[in-house]
Amino acid sequence: MDDAEIAKLGPDVPEWRVVEREGIRRIEREYAFKDFRSALDFTVAVGELAEREQHHPDIHLSWGRVRVETWTHKIKGLHRNDFILAAKCDQLYTAAART
Amino acid sequence: MDDAEIAKLGPDVPEWRVVEREGIRRIEREYAFKDFRSALDFTVAVGELAEREQHHPDIHLSWGRVRVETWTHKIKGLHRNDFILAAKCDQLYTAAART
Repeated sequence: MDDAEIAKLGPDVPEWRVVEREGIRRIEREYAFKDFRSALDFTVAVGELAEREQHHPDIHLSWGRVRVETWTHKIKGLHRNDFILAAKCDQLYTAAART
Repeated sequence: MDDAEIAKLGPDVPEWRVVEREGIRRIEREYAFKDFRSALDFTVAVGELAEREQHHPDIHLSWGRVRVETWTHKIKGLHRNDFILAAKCDQLYTAAART
């Protein structure tokens, strides 16, 4: 994806930011939770989503926080699928906040 | 814990290494898995252990890998409990490898 395409999809997932690490462009978001258990439950929900989509982000779990980081390994950069995964993670977070 | 105490407990968890990040000394280990699902299952096992022990490490999950990082927030450094948690994570990994 070039910058113009990223600029087009970015607004759909406004809480995500583009970062570059180890020469690879990716998007990431940090989610907040009230305790470790809630953060663990969200990690599992994102993990199950990743298996369904067969698109696997990095998930960093700590007390009350989960950071999800996604890019597309095959192209060593961002693909439309990363933005789709990001939007679905946001939906899971909204659903988790309701329970 | 001072260096002498760490040197004494370290050999019990030989795969773990002491690292310093953000001015805080911690121990960490990376575990390898055959796929994302196995890594996710291990993340859950370590998360459940953390809840039982009420000692919560950072857990970094990616495809086929889990990195566990532990330190004691209250003292901003290493405590005997970190080495106990590390040893229990190793036991979980051994048990997971058997299934």
